[in-house]
Amino acid sequence: MRVPFDTLKAQIAAIFTTWGMSAEHARLCAERMGAADIRGIDSHGATMMQLYSEQFAAGQINVKPNIRILRESPVTALIDADHSLGHVPATQAMELAIAKCKKTGLAAVAVKQSNHYGSAGAYALMAAEAGLIGMSFTSVWHPVVVPTFAAEPMFGTNPIAFAAPGRKHPMFYLDMATSTAAVGKLKVALLNGKTVPEGWALDAAGKPLTDPAVALEKVLLTPLGASRTMGSHKGYGLGAMVEVLCSMLPGAWYAPTRDARHPGEIHNNIGHFFLAIDPHAFRDEGEFEDDLDDMIAALHATRPIDAKQPVLVAGDPEQTAMKDRLANGVPVPDMLIGQLKAIATQSKAPWLIG
Amino acid sequence: MRVPFDTLKAQIAAIFTTWGMSAEHARLCAERMGAADIRGIDSHGATMMQLYSEQFAAGQINVKPNIRILRESPVTALIDADHSLGHVPATQAMELAIAKCKKTGLAAVAVKQSNHYGSAGAYALMAAEAGLIGMSFTSVWHPVVVPTFAAEPMFGTNPIAFAAPGRKHPMFYLDMATSTAAVGKLKVALLNGKTVPEGWALDAAGKPLTDPAVALEKVLLTPLGASRTMGSHKGYGLGAMVEVLCSMLPGAWYAPTRDARHPGEIHNNIGHFFLAIDPHAFRDEGEFEDDLDDMIAALHATRPIDAKQPVLVAGDPEQTAMKDRLANGVPVPDMLIGQLKAIATQSKAPWLIG
Repeated sequence: MRVPFDTLKAQIAAIFTTWGMSAEHARLCAERMGAADIRGIDSHGATMMQLYSEQFAAGQINVKPNIRILRESPVTALIDADHSLGHVPATQAMELAIAKCKKTGLAAVAVKQSNHYGSAGAYALMAAEAGLIGMSFTSVWHPVVVPTFAAEPMFGTNPIAFAAPGRKHPMFYLDMATSTAAVGKLKVALLNGKTVPEGWALDAAGKPLTDPAVALEKVLLTPLGASRTMGSHKGYGLGAMVEVLCSMLPGAWYAPTRDARHPGEIHNNIGHFFLAIDPHAFRDEGEFEDDLDDMIAALHATRPIDAKQPVLVAGDPEQTAMKDRLANGVPVPDMLIGQLKAIATQSKAPWLIG
Repeated sequence: MRVPFDTLKAQIAAIFTTWGMSAEHARLCAERMGAADIRGIDSHGATMMQLYSEQFAAGQINVKPNIRILRESPVTALIDADHSLGHVPATQAMELAIAKCKKTGLAAVAVKQSNHYGSAGAYALMAAEAGLIGMSFTSVWHPVVVPTFAAEPMFGTNPIAFAAPGRKHPMFYLDMATSTAAVGKLKVALLNGKTVPEGWALDAAGKPLTDPAVALEKVLLTPLGASRTMGSHKGYGLGAMVEVLCSMLPGAWYAPTRDARHPGEIHNNIGHFFLAIDPHAFRDEGEFEDDLDDMIAALHATRPIDAKQPVLVAGDPEQTAMKDRLANGVPVPDMLIGQLKAIATQSKAPWLIG
């Protein structure tokens, strides 16, 4: 089923509103979730409602948060999200970073006491749409990624997102987990009755698991690189870097030590980190954008191994999906329609999808 | 042969001095190269003298550069390296970023018209030693990494370095190429008569090469992830991100389009990008460092797959190497001794290694 983009966002906002969220906060959440859905990042948009609904029921999400700036300078800020759903403080954080960066050329804003914020890319995107280079990182409440040589998970999929504005090409847009594959890919394989490639998931003895049902029982994902030989220590290092920026820097909690250090806490205290860089602090008007266009054009013109599969640039698949979905609506699988309908019914939200 | 650390640095500085470099610039280059050698990053210290010697002979390295700040704000700067060897402007850039960051909480400095700057980590390290989070990136003059689906190289090994200060643990220190393996690893395999793992290097048809001699004829390294299935689009995306920060942002040249856009130029115009973040802009004194120690301790305590191979943290191997090498000297293979001696003889530099 194809759902018009505005209808999907309105449906999501309507559910959040019945939970008690302000209209403005509900709109921000729907906008950021929609930024994923419209670009084909199906794992981080409307599909997240199920988790948010469970976390809301468990009292982990504060729908009437008092989001405050705890510290601030002309180029930095620390925001306390007061256990809000992450999209609200993350949007405010990137808006603040953009405003500061427009004045100073550079800004960094960190967030603590937050929850899941959707796709990391949605915030990097905001900066690029404002003509800036944007970066967005988040830690995760539940460890699933094993360090190299380890039998236990010690990080979330700790993503890195980076967006930069072009001129002929709208932007360079990278949004990646620092694991080899995301949990969502195991679920997709399970739903389709397929195995997963060796190296995505391991058992506690470090052996590759290819049956997604087994791999999902206790999720142990490899860091990008998959094995020590193929560079998993690099993916592990990047995941740890994201943790330092998102947990240690704002004072959020490191999930593996959370229960021991903060016993009895129902909140996750997830952290995010945002960076904005103004190309005009370094280059004259248009120079950065033209040079970025030049690189993107060169990459598109790169001789491919197979003429049928041209070389892509980060952001290309998202652009293709967006063009299709703006015109034809967002494809929403029946299972997700069912989930959304159940959540809407339970929260007495109007059903707008029809 | 083990060479005392100070002797190795003095030897390197002596060669640079005979090339015409000022004593101060020669010292900076030797310090930054030494920062790699003392930590066991053997590919990026004294071994680089051979390349620098060739580039100096080809007129690509200006040993009497007029390094200038082209643009500056309280939190940003753009430096023109005037074709200097990269260690000099890169050190000055990170020193400037550190000084700005100590005042403002955050700073970014970009460099253009530069050359090879040694190990990316050497500059991130400077920030962490000053109590700051440091990041260091560089583009490379010669493309060797193929994008996903591509038959031609379009990036260098475009490294990412990140260092953050701890208290009980000296620091978290990540220094990684965004390729699966570095060119140096192919050379080491060749010298040792070994094959390389499938997935490090490809032929122009995208087939894995395991004979390092063949792989070194025309180097086509995979991005971190090695194949599309295992996430090479992520390593490719990270390499492109580094290129945007190091080439497009400062106005350096993108190597694959350099000859077409700047015909007849002998200079490479490599760019670097440095970022410094002051944890005290976000946390009270010691809080960040304690939380970082907590993460590092948790990682060290992670249950390993094999009790004989404990879980390591980025920076551990470098710490181990540094302890050994400070006490016992830097191991310098005979072949490298021969190269250094030839370069010293040719430049009429004194031979200090003995």
